[in-house]
Amino acid sequence: MSKETIFSTAPYKGTRDFYPTASLSTPGKSNYFKERQNHIKNTIEKVLVGCGFDEYSSSVLEYSDVFKQKSGEELASRALYEFTDRGDRQIALRPELTLGLSRVIAGQFDNLRFPLRWFSWDNCFRYERPQKGRLREFWQMEVDIVGLEAGAVDYEVIFVLGEIFRAFGADKNMYSIQYNHRGLMDLWIAKNGWQGFAGELFAVIDNWVKLDETARGIDLRKILDNQKDVQKITNTMNRIGEDFAEYEKLAEGFVELDLIKKNLQSVDLPIQFCPWIVRGQSYYTGLVFECFDKNNNNPRSLFGGGRFDNLLDLFGKSVPAIGFAPGDVSMHEFLTNWNLYPDVFTSQQKIGILPMSEKSLVKMYQEIIPKLQKQGQAFDIDYSYERSLNKRQEALLKRDCSENILVE
Amino acid sequence: MSKETIFSTAPYKGTRDFYPTASLSTPGKSNYFKERQNHIKNTIEKVLVGCGFDEYSSSVLEYSDVFKQKSGEELASRALYEFTDRGDRQIALRPELTLGLSRVIAGQFDNLRFPLRWFSWDNCFRYERPQKGRLREFWQMEVDIVGLEAGAVDYEVIFVLGEIFRAFGADKNMYSIQYNHRGLMDLWIAKNGWQGFAGELFAVIDNWVKLDETARGIDLRKILDNQKDVQKITNTMNRIGEDFAEYEKLAEGFVELDLIKKNLQSVDLPIQFCPWIVRGQSYYTGLVFECFDKNNNNPRSLFGGGRFDNLLDLFGKSVPAIGFAPGDVSMHEFLTNWNLYPDVFTSQQKIGILPMSEKSLVKMYQEIIPKLQKQGQAFDIDYSYERSLNKRQEALLKRDCSENILVE
Repeated sequence: MSKETIFSTAPYKGTRDFYPTASLSTPGKSNYFKERQNHIKNTIEKVLVGCGFDEYSSSVLEYSDVFKQKSGEELASRALYEFTDRGDRQIALRPELTLGLSRVIAGQFDNLRFPLRWFSWDNCFRYERPQKGRLREFWQMEVDIVGLEAGAVDYEVIFVLGEIFRAFGADKNMYSIQYNHRGLMDLWIAKNGWQGFAGELFAVIDNWVKLDETARGIDLRKILDNQKDVQKITNTMNRIGEDFAEYEKLAEGFVELDLIKKNLQSVDLPIQFCPWIVRGQSYYTGLVFECFDKNNNNPRSLFGGGRFDNLLDLFGKSVPAIGFAPGDVSMHEFLTNWNLYPDVFTSQQKIGILPMSEKSLVKMYQEIIPKLQKQGQAFDIDYSYERSLNKRQEALLKRDCSENILVE
Repeated sequence: MSKETIFSTAPYKGTRDFYPTASLSTPGKSNYFKERQNHIKNTIEKVLVGCGFDEYSSSVLEYSDVFKQKSGEELASRALYEFTDRGDRQIALRPELTLGLSRVIAGQFDNLRFPLRWFSWDNCFRYERPQKGRLREFWQMEVDIVGLEAGAVDYEVIFVLGEIFRAFGADKNMYSIQYNHRGLMDLWIAKNGWQGFAGELFAVIDNWVKLDETARGIDLRKILDNQKDVQKITNTMNRIGEDFAEYEKLAEGFVELDLIKKNLQSVDLPIQFCPWIVRGQSYYTGLVFECFDKNNNNPRSLFGGGRFDNLLDLFGKSVPAIGFAPGDVSMHEFLTNWNLYPDVFTSQQKIGILPMSEKSLVKMYQEIIPKLQKQGQAFDIDYSYERSLNKRQEALLKRDCSENILVE
């Protein structure tokens, strides 16, 4: 090896190094703390386990063909990490977790006890320009209930969503949940005679609230021939924005929407019906919802989900399913914005062990450490015999050891 | 999308799908249970946290140049998953964790409080023929102490190693730890005048115990011109195998070896000095060790480690370090061979909730669930109002719910 080459210490663009807070002299110099990522994971996981969910997982590497078919055009053409392995297989780093979930379920379909309440904390990759709240690698908690038709379970998912925000200490001024229904969208589009360009219109509507009147017009002109139609759609959309009644009248007969409304009457959740929530993925079939950060400095979509009753068709199976997937990058922004991270992350309080010389080691391993282990007490060992006791104790104090044991 | 395509449910070759045991009717039909992988992770993590280790992590994607320089020829030329991203960067799925650890440490070098006791549970990829105990994707617990010169800390690492096996319930008949020292190897090679082909000889010695006399001869002939030299080396190696005394005499002056011997006198660890342990990676500089499964049906190397005092040189920094990395694939074989997995993995015992109709839901969310949550009691909800109570209770029993609550 050439001794001269010095390699960069930067992680691959858009990925993160997570440091243990206790190891850093000036924690502010690092952007990412492992304890914070663990806090996001553990907080959500605790809610899910309490609500009867079980953990599964699968690999970040998948055969790429299924993503190209199903994850939406944008992902496949621009953002998918795809490559060829040494055996000429086309593989990809998964850009999301729901397709993998479907494959895993289909793989043991006849051996599974439905309904499944499953979760997985796993990483995904998208080739995008890294920015605040969006990186190339992110972790998601995939949360799904599989095997129950639209109905009471749709509200259960909303309930779990609310419990997650509550577990983070978020109150209803900090976030909102907005929901809609793909079936309702279809009825509404049919009612207005827009079936011919429904797919393209979904994409415009998905961005509706993020755009101003002019930008909406530009997007609509891409799919509509004349300005009169653009104006008509704009007017219809705006009218709905002012008064949901017309749109909601169509919702009669969707039992899951009735049940949500009924349950929400007695619950203090910041949730609203919103006709512009459609979600990007093409595989949604029923209820769709999206959670937003209400912070004025940085209002943004946090994550979303919905019902996907046909997704397992890809693997030759059929089962109804509903789920969502909060990600660690956007949740980090949310918790930071609202100051919801615990103030101090300390690793378990440790006892410092100070052997006085190398002769003390045998006693340390035979007597001191077994005693601490019996107490379930974590320890840290300082070997710098040559330094003064004061200096050694000071060093241990900086390492979260407020108590020390001297070993003669 | 074409409705006809049915995609395979197989995970990418050499990767695994992990199922929650409780979800499977016949668990034996699945090879991998999430609870078992978690058991491996959690058992090791508990030992490490008790011994004062802190968690870090980094991405599975790394710039590939550093692996090609340092991970050994075999890895780079045959087993490295390397590709080009859409921005023409050469990237790789990491084949091991120690190089990434070094990069992460170098990245905040002046901001870190050495010594570091760090761990990380992360996945690695190697393009190999999948076989028992070796897959293309595996998880490792990277365990390192960084910032302490060879000495007492080398035994601390051996101690932690023993604690991990103890935590799995392994006794000294089930595994062995064998150790050697790279500095000692260097002295021994110099003493015999073999410096000219030391690197190649290391590779042969690394396989010594796995090969018979003939195979060793073939390997040695590849690096030595005449049969006389081959015979001389073989004789010397065999003599050492029969009597370590000659080899061990060289060990005087290596303080870390003295300390290990001294501490081991009073500890019942299945550990032996072994001149054939050299470890594949070129970056080891001092103590090297390897753990073996002693199962007669499947004796094999489980994992290993050693001291790597120069590895951060690659990133322009210098700090002594020592570590090891047990992997989930080989530990799975070890625990299976010796029947060391807990008999039954149950998810947290759940209480089944049986709403009698849709009208019961509001009461369920307002009264029953908050009460269970206060008790920290996990629950499962059954919505099949149309079925008989008996059938519903039977179904819940199969889902680990031995107690049920009816909601009128």
